[in-house]
Amino acid sequence: MKEIKVGVIGCGYWGPNLIRNLNENHHTSLTHVCDLDRERAARIKLRYPHVISITDYRDLLKDSTLDAVAVATPVSTHYRLVREALEAGKHVLVEKPFTSSTREAERLVALARKKGLVLLVDHTFIYTGAVRDIKTRVVTGELGDLFYFDSVRVNLGLFQRDVNVVWDLAPHDLSIMDYLVGEDPVSVAATGTAHTPGGFEDVAYMTLKFKGSLIAHFHVNWMSPVKIRKIILGGSRKMLVFDDLDPGEKVKIYDKGISVSKPSRNSIYQSLVQYRIGDMYAPAISNIEALKGEIEHFAECIMNGATPLTDGEAGLRVVRILEAANRSLKKDGAKVRL
Amino acid sequence: MKEIKVGVIGCGYWGPNLIRNLNENHHTSLTHVCDLDRERAARIKLRYPHVISITDYRDLLKDSTLDAVAVATPVSTHYRLVREALEAGKHVLVEKPFTSSTREAERLVALARKKGLVLLVDHTFIYTGAVRDIKTRVVTGELGDLFYFDSVRVNLGLFQRDVNVVWDLAPHDLSIMDYLVGEDPVSVAATGTAHTPGGFEDVAYMTLKFKGSLIAHFHVNWMSPVKIRKIILGGSRKMLVFDDLDPGEKVKIYDKGISVSKPSRNSIYQSLVQYRIGDMYAPAISNIEALKGEIEHFAECIMNGATPLTDGEAGLRVVRILEAANRSLKKDGAKVRL
Amino acid sequence: MKEIKVGVIGCGYWGPNLIRNLNENHHTSLTHVCDLDRERAARIKLRYPHVISITDYRDLLKDSTLDAVAVATPVSTHYRLVREALEAGKHVLVEKPFTSSTREAERLVALARKKGLVLLVDHTFIYTGAVRDIKTRVVTGELGDLFYFDSVRVNLGLFQRDVNVVWDLAPHDLSIMDYLVGEDPVSVAATGTAHTPGGFEDVAYMTLKFKGSLIAHFHVNWMSPVKIRKIILGGSRKMLVFDDLDPGEKVKIYDKGISVSKPSRNSIYQSLVQYRIGDMYAPAISNIEALKGEIEHFAECIMNGATPLTDGEAGLRVVRILEAANRSLKKDGAKVRL
Amino acid sequence: MKEIKVGVIGCGYWGPNLIRNLNENHHTSLTHVCDLDRERAARIKLRYPHVISITDYRDLLKDSTLDAVAVATPVSTHYRLVREALEAGKHVLVEKPFTSSTREAERLVALARKKGLVLLVDHTFIYTGAVRDIKTRVVTGELGDLFYFDSVRVNLGLFQRDVNVVWDLAPHDLSIMDYLVGEDPVSVAATGTAHTPGGFEDVAYMTLKFKGSLIAHFHVNWMSPVKIRKIILGGSRKMLVFDDLDPGEKVKIYDKGISVSKPSRNSIYQSLVQYRIGDMYAPAISNIEALKGEIEHFAECIMNGATPLTDGEAGLRVVRILEAANRSLKKDGAKVRL
Repeated sequence: MKEIKVGVIGCGYWGPNLIRNLNENHHTSLTHVCDLDRERAARIKLRYPHVISITDYRDLLKDSTLDAVAVATPVSTHYRLVREALEAGKHVLVEKPFTSSTREAERLVALARKKGLVLLVDHTFIYTGAVRDIKTRVVTGELGDLFYFDSVRVNLGLFQRDVNVVWDLAPHDLSIMDYLVGEDPVSVAATGTAHTPGGFEDVAYMTLKFKGSLIAHFHVNWMSPVKIRKIILGGSRKMLVFDDLDPGEKVKIYDKGISVSKPSRNSIYQSLVQYRIGDMYAPAISNIEALKGEIEHFAECIMNGATPLTDGEAGLRVVRILEAANRSLKKDGAKVRL
Repeated sequence: MKEIKVGVIGCGYWGPNLIRNLNENHHTSLTHVCDLDRERAARIKLRYPHVISITDYRDLLKDSTLDAVAVATPVSTHYRLVREALEAGKHVLVEKPFTSSTREAERLVALARKKGLVLLVDHTFIYTGAVRDIKTRVVTGELGDLFYFDSVRVNLGLFQRDVNVVWDLAPHDLSIMDYLVGEDPVSVAATGTAHTPGGFEDVAYMTLKFKGSLIAHFHVNWMSPVKIRKIILGGSRKMLVFDDLDPGEKVKIYDKGISVSKPSRNSIYQSLVQYRIGDMYAPAISNIEALKGEIEHFAECIMNGATPLTDGEAGLRVVRILEAANRSLKKDGAKVRL
Repeated sequence: MKEIKVGVIGCGYWGPNLIRNLNENHHTSLTHVCDLDRERAARIKLRYPHVISITDYRDLLKDSTLDAVAVATPVSTHYRLVREALEAGKHVLVEKPFTSSTREAERLVALARKKGLVLLVDHTFIYTGAVRDIKTRVVTGELGDLFYFDSVRVNLGLFQRDVNVVWDLAPHDLSIMDYLVGEDPVSVAATGTAHTPGGFEDVAYMTLKFKGSLIAHFHVNWMSPVKIRKIILGGSRKMLVFDDLDPGEKVKIYDKGISVSKPSRNSIYQSLVQYRIGDMYAPAISNIEALKGEIEHFAECIMNGATPLTDGEAGLRVVRILEAANRSLKKDGAKVRL
Repeated sequence: MKEIKVGVIGCGYWGPNLIRNLNENHHTSLTHVCDLDRERAARIKLRYPHVISITDYRDLLKDSTLDAVAVATPVSTHYRLVREALEAGKHVLVEKPFTSSTREAERLVALARKKGLVLLVDHTFIYTGAVRDIKTRVVTGELGDLFYFDSVRVNLGLFQRDVNVVWDLAPHDLSIMDYLVGEDPVSVAATGTAHTPGGFEDVAYMTLKFKGSLIAHFHVNWMSPVKIRKIILGGSRKMLVFDDLDPGEKVKIYDKGISVSKPSRNSIYQSLVQYRIGDMYAPAISNIEALKGEIEHFAECIMNGATPLTDGEAGLRVVRILEAANRSLKKDGAKVRL
């Protein structure tokens, strides 16, 4: 028996994936879909005839039988929709980036807490087998101390009309970084350029610094002729490459690194660096669709009153970095403290 | 008949390549090799028994029959050695980076000019078939306006004891960028971290800005588990990937891009972006060893009194950026104007 | 308005793809699904509630409003189902391999002709952008005379219970070969081994010879640790690689080859071979789902009384080779004339 | 002190590699080089001025101070040269393929044994870190029972004037197969075609069968637009890919396979196959030049009177298969028993 009745607001690019998974999950029951574009919602109804299709989300929030909503609309609308949904007593799953500003995010986090409702930000990558596998290796110390997190996410992209390439693409990698590193950066610097008249940045680079010697860097690009989705994670013991486009070996762990001899009295400023070139290892990674596991997790959190892995706080941490990145972009790459 | 007598100072990592090519070129005659390490020079002599092996470069400069010297010593010694060689009336080929500072580079450029001697900086990549091919495409306008130059040069590297990873690896890509773009950047920002006690930066990122919307970015890294040598060059008409590790298809030109419709009165801030996904093309690239062509070019410049493609000015432009990068690194990534 | 009413028999591995495409096509209307497994047909109905779900195909054939059926059952049942469907006056789309024997195939071809019905064998690859692109290059002479067709289709596969690896995997490549080469082979030799007790061959190699010097070879394998789907097509002018697993550049055309000088009197048996290493070119390939185009083609053939690109004759040609391959396998690789 | 004086006969394609390694090995002393082409030998002398350069190999064999010769001439001359060298009391290292016929190979094996001289066939791959690593995995049972050995060695090749593509390229893979499998095949079948007038086969496929269910297959091709050097080795426990062109991960071991349940009484002909998809593992492989280790091994065998890993018997086993392959090619692919 399905317990949790869910409606989806926003049937555009990502919405159909939410709809499909909410429909197939055993704990959730998809009851409504909502889109300003009547045509779009109608197309959904064609495939899911049992679903009520509406254009005004307020009708949906009014329905007292509804337990939860999933919000997959443009980011500028998230704050209002999530707020009203929480106020209407609905649990909420919301697309990333969570909100347009830190302030909005903080308010929603507080509101959800006050209402005792589940608020899950759709940081989908956290629910992939690959990122889960990597997390275990970080936590168990297999990689040693983290040295750097280098991410490249580029392709000839969908130019967004409302946000720049940092807000469009970096949330994926920031959420992965946030989850794996488990530590807040102390500063952000971002630089980039726009190549369309009056447009947003379409190529950008962002650097995060942390307390120790850890550095994180992100290359996001809508203007690349090739598609790259690659993260290199360097540790003191092992290093790791996560190539999301490699169907067979998404995660490769390299037993490579350096060992540094203690400098002797005579070479006080020069330590002796030695290289270690060992084996490579690619674990079998679960292929289960991430969103499927995420929806299951959403349902379980609702049923058990648990806090989601990617809760409002996680969404807030990512938005805080994005906001600072935008400030840095405006100041031509100057460092912004967090 | 060989005309140009050349001696080589420095028989370490790169020296043997210079030695082999100087020995095999029809216009040059390798007569001396010089290294502080007597053992090293002796090993060279074993393979080239006709060559005079010495340990003091001054003996070499004194030899009036010698026409030219090639300097392949640590960068900190370049200024003194090149200066003395020029003063002794020798043409000079010197390793990259040219010098340790802009000031040194400027003096050597002036000295060579005054003396009327050939001064070639060993920006080897400029003599590869791949970079030559790309240059033609830039010059003919095939790529259109340049949008960005993105370079990644990473591997588990040779940690240097005297310079950081920027000075060690970026000269390759800066020289390629300088040659292809043909324009001076207006600012540099560089950030990085060191992971060995008292050591130099081993991971670094550098951004160059130009007058228009062109941006250049460099990722250099001695701590990567995988080897990457890749440049993506985005243009308004076409885009290009130069993968130096792809033996078969080093240069790929993508007929991909965007076209922007003129914004109408009603959508003044929103232009319409359309994607163009066309064919890819990988030209046959000459496999001739770059250094072979460079030595030939050096000989021809000496014989004809011509200015090398990679002259002291080119070396100076690269050093100027490196110097500014170091300043930026010390100021934690702050932008340094050039 | 949808004109052609279609029922699908067999809702297993491939059936759902047919169902989805028949449902979405504007000329076809999916009215029935049929599967012996009541559960399976019910699952389909869940997604397509307007469809009538049955377990006995005869009920389906009796329905006089039905125009066509698609058969996606095990190959051993094809003959009976297709025959009865044709006899009931239905147009037929049938999975590959067409039938279990040449004899069966011939009868169905004759029956369809007699009845004036469309019979399309689901050689899906023929409707891909890649194979269409290659066909054009063969037909226009861009590749020159065909020298060889080399196909590798291997992975850790779905062991079939009713056919060996040749009947399971080779139909894909045989249909591509048949379409591209446009000529019948004169002999088949196949060899392989089985590694499960009482099982069918799971690794096999097959060679086809043609009248001239063209040779075609197929490696099919259910026991490979890696997935490969690659065809190399060598011609006298150009050569081509079709890598179905390369998402970006499925088809690469190489301007490579040899040119042979006429042997002189003195070297009567030795011709002078010279190599040509030119550019590589990867055309933009349409990404439209092949099955979508195939269903459209099926509908058009029914509406216009046209003969499908992959008609019963094409299916028969492939079955003829498969049947001969089985004979050769039983004779330990001996050549079988066609 | 160098003990073993060696002369090299044949300074063509491969000779210079032997020369370089014999010159640098601490146990061997390169004293003579011999080539019918006076120019060629002279070029060698330029680089190794201490070496005596001759054109008649008989002068070399007469020199009683010489301990060993290395023969790197066309295969048709191997028998005569090796025989005369052995008769002159010289240890011999000879290029692959060992001889033109089984008969010649048998005679040389017998002669070397009678004379008590070391006879090493240059099956270079056996001395690579990769093949050594794989051998260990086969011997320790890590791979389980061997199921198949699949080899592809193709590129736009050097057309040979004296042998077909099987004799040119397959010796590499046959020697690897012989070493790894450690068992003689019972039959050979080979098929191929020639695409130059009066030329030898330039595309060929060869199948070897063994006593059990092991099958070995070889694709050799001078007419391929792409270079592939790949061996897949399937075992009952694990499977392995050896990609000689992958600089980073030459050997990959896959913990993949199938497990077969015992058939129950009711399903006597149908066993239940289950898939195992586990981790992948790429061991660090030594990069030492294979020929360097081989020359060292040659020297040690001479000094200790030991039998080389790749002795005349190994050479003979490979020639026996090549000879049978040629017979099969002439009989249009018919199986030839060994």
